[in-house]
Amino acid sequence: MKRALVIGGHGTLGKAIVAKLNELSVEVVTAGRSSGDYQVDMTSTDSIKALFEAVQSIDYVIVAAGQTHYAKLEELTPENNMISVQSKLLGQVNIVLIGQHYVNDKGSFTLVSGIIKDHPIAQGASSAMANGAIDAFAKAAAYELPRGIRLNSVSPNLFEESAEKYRDFFMGFNPVPVERVANTFIQSALGIETAQTFKVY
Amino acid sequence: MKRALVIGGHGTLGKAIVAKLNELSVEVVTAGRSSGDYQVDMTSTDSIKALFEAVQSIDYVIVAAGQTHYAKLEELTPENNMISVQSKLLGQVNIVLIGQHYVNDKGSFTLVSGIIKDHPIAQGASSAMANGAIDAFAKAAAYELPRGIRLNSVSPNLFEESAEKYRDFFMGFNPVPVERVANTFIQSALGIETAQTFKVY
Repeated sequence: MKRALVIGGHGTLGKAIVAKLNELSVEVVTAGRSSGDYQVDMTSTDSIKALFEAVQSIDYVIVAAGQTHYAKLEELTPENNMISVQSKLLGQVNIVLIGQHYVNDKGSFTLVSGIIKDHPIAQGASSAMANGAIDAFAKAAAYELPRGIRLNSVSPNLFEESAEKYRDFFMGFNPVPVERVANTFIQSALGIETAQTFKVY
Repeated sequence: MKRALVIGGHGTLGKAIVAKLNELSVEVVTAGRSSGDYQVDMTSTDSIKALFEAVQSIDYVIVAAGQTHYAKLEELTPENNMISVQSKLLGQVNIVLIGQHYVNDKGSFTLVSGIIKDHPIAQGASSAMANGAIDAFAKAAAYELPRGIRLNSVSPNLFEESAEKYRDFFMGFNPVPVERVANTFIQSALGIETAQTFKVY
């Protein structure tokens, strides 16, 4: 039986991914800042190391977490931009850099980026930066992973489930059901592709 | 007379850009870690702020600098990856975040990324990450810049001038003369386009 580690497994997206994995009889371990089977602080390399030491025997690492800072560009500063850098950007990169030494042969990493990289929105420059870093890192790092381990990113559109809340920021975007995004995480994690960005737009 | 600030103005690329600007009768101020009219440490926000305070009245900010760390993925760590994050990634992002409050109306920022984002090479994951962040940040932040200020990135291929030295890392890449890359920096800095990545491949 294959085992998946879903970081952010109790968020809107994470829960949908866990449901899909359960349907497929993949054993699921979840991790989150405050909920889940294990606690992890993505901004701490010690915390990420401790997570991989604790979970043991993981085939599929799936990240459905990562904070970004939204601010008007004029109010975006080197300091508040670090929220995105430490969490969504370096948090995910470090999960791969550390996790590469733990994940099972022929396992996979699936990271999350987002549509803002391709279609910017107001106040989204910091998020776009993090997304661009993740897509490019996944593409490059994938080719150097050992033991048949794969690595992709999934770039989702706005979720239907949060479309009303964020409508004013995503004018005219066509939201997608989170279930479709979750399915694409499965495609990345359990399929054969590597070094790809799966866009769910 | 327009004034350009070229950060990294004494490197291979920077010197070629300065030569082009001189031909076009643009006044040039250079900055670098140890050479140039002004010294700047891109990894320090205080140093970047001090630079913009000192240079005064700048129309075109051009970055031809930024360090990245090359390492086999298995030897890339959260710690040594920070070299790329602090310098090429955040150094350039912070030049825009800080410089947006100083640059003249209808001025421009031109950042540097690189072909490794699109065509990964061994030991290049950290560099690809930085390049991806820069291209995505430039695209998103450009639309929020005030006062007609523009922002683009230039993504160069391997330079002909360093092709022999790096041949084993860039097998089969078609190197481009640095003069062509410098010309594209002029196209970005002095043209009308914004939110673009100019690829010189």
